[in-house]
Amino acid sequence: MKGLEENFAWQKRMIWKWLGALLLFPVQMLYLVVKAAVCLVLPPRLRDLSRDNVLVTGGGRGIGRHLAREFARRGARKVGDITILVNNAAVVHGKSLMDSDDDALLKSQHINTLGQFWTTKAFLPRMLELQNGHIVCLNSVLALSAIPGAIDYCTSKASSFAFMESLTLGLLDCPGVNATTVLPFHTSTEMFQGMRIRFPSLFPPLKPETVARRTVEAVQMNQAFLLLPWTMHVLVILKSILPQAALEEIHKFSGSYTCMNTFKGRTQS
Amino acid sequence: MKGLEENFAWQKRMIWKWLGALLLFPVQMLYLVVKAAVCLVLPPRLRDLSRDNVLVTGGGRGIGRHLAREFARRGARKVGDITILVNNAAVVHGKSLMDSDDDALLKSQHINTLGQFWTTKAFLPRMLELQNGHIVCLNSVLALSAIPGAIDYCTSKASSFAFMESLTLGLLDCPGVNATTVLPFHTSTEMFQGMRIRFPSLFPPLKPETVARRTVEAVQMNQAFLLLPWTMHVLVILKSILPQAALEEIHKFSGSYTCMNTFKGRTQS
Repeated sequence: MKGLEENFAWQKRMIWKWLGALLLFPVQMLYLVVKAAVCLVLPPRLRDLSRDNVLVTGGGRGIGRHLAREFARRGARKVGDITILVNNAAVVHGKSLMDSDDDALLKSQHINTLGQFWTTKAFLPRMLELQNGHIVCLNSVLALSAIPGAIDYCTSKASSFAFMESLTLGLLDCPGVNATTVLPFHTSTEMFQGMRIRFPSLFPPLKPETVARRTVEAVQMNQAFLLLPWTMHVLVILKSILPQAALEEIHKFSGSYTCMNTFKGRTQS
Repeated sequence: MKGLEENFAWQKRMIWKWLGALLLFPVQMLYLVVKAAVCLVLPPRLRDLSRDNVLVTGGGRGIGRHLAREFARRGARKVGDITILVNNAAVVHGKSLMDSDDDALLKSQHINTLGQFWTTKAFLPRMLELQNGHIVCLNSVLALSAIPGAIDYCTSKASSFAFMESLTLGLLDCPGVNATTVLPFHTSTEMFQGMRIRFPSLFPPLKPETVARRTVEAVQMNQAFLLLPWTMHVLVILKSILPQAALEEIHKFSGSYTCMNTFKGRTQS
């Protein structure tokens, strides 16, 4: 009899604990939303980069070159244990599925997604040991909303975004090591030369130096995800609530459906 | 002078056209939202499958086996030109980045993502020729929200989701050929054996036969994207509006953060 009673008391305690957690949860959510809103208006505290060593993949041109400069300008170095890894290298083939050849599809997956697996696996263990590190990923808004004319790029960037989401959650347990994912809109680099959108005055292309500056600031503020420009948040919210037929009309109307028809890409290598 | 005037008149016409499109657009959006809401309550018109030939990859067990049965039960055949391709084959390794070995990461990408590129490239051209075809993808809600304990699965499913998004938009121009992507929540198959969530009474695992039935119905209704169960829409909307800190709490609270700690997976092959 005593065993039964104890079991009953234990079940009662568990139910109360469960209910408590369930009731506390909305309060916690509200607190976190208000806190995030307050942080948006307060001046941010920026991390000092003078003791960091940075590795930027694809640092020779485009956003990567500006990233290397921006990190250097703010005091980061390039020798010793890597404490900031910037996965920036990427290619784009810019064709639809039936127009893409198999090699091009594979190459984008290998450079844009798998490359990031290997660099992160190479440098993360030492960061975890030092309890000091930051993994940065230059991604794209196309990871969140794929278009037909660049199936290689959209699929590999979506994969890389999920990689960073998974990593960001996994690092919650690891003190001193964090991750930042940057999702810029169309940037005026050679990589996307010839891409044309319908309302360039509403959505002008970003400058690579702006993307670089905002990325380094996001690292210094330890921000996990950064959409550039902020108006992209509106598109993400619309995407989560509108029916498919409406999303298709938005794609047609905004020109994202046909923006790659005039795509030229890098003309020099 | 005449050239200048003509140019000015042309510019004026363009501005009016641009303004017209911009004003018409909200009306069009409203119409499409209302139409989608009405379609939700009306009984759907189901496509007759008796003249279709279906190919289901990974049809030997789990959801795939039930899919093959469900298509057969509704009259679809398995000989002749393939008019319905179901990309269902997938593997899961179920480990975090640092616990995954390189081969396992590569294998998941090859089967879950690249495999779909190749099967689709093989069968789509004939469907386009016949103006009759349907590409189906069995995806996962994990494509939309990655967790730390299954980095191989989340990244490859996210990539596969972007593939289907890109394909779905690309097929808008192609009469008679369509695509359906199904994103089920945790399904009680051997593949995810041992996965444990915190509130199984709130979010019970799906039965594979339910996923199969809803998938075939979605094909018959020509529905582009299907989230199972529908409550997953709430999570997608929350994900688009909540700050990162709140999302992290949701992951911890719901147990999705640690659900793979007890993961066993397929014990027989």
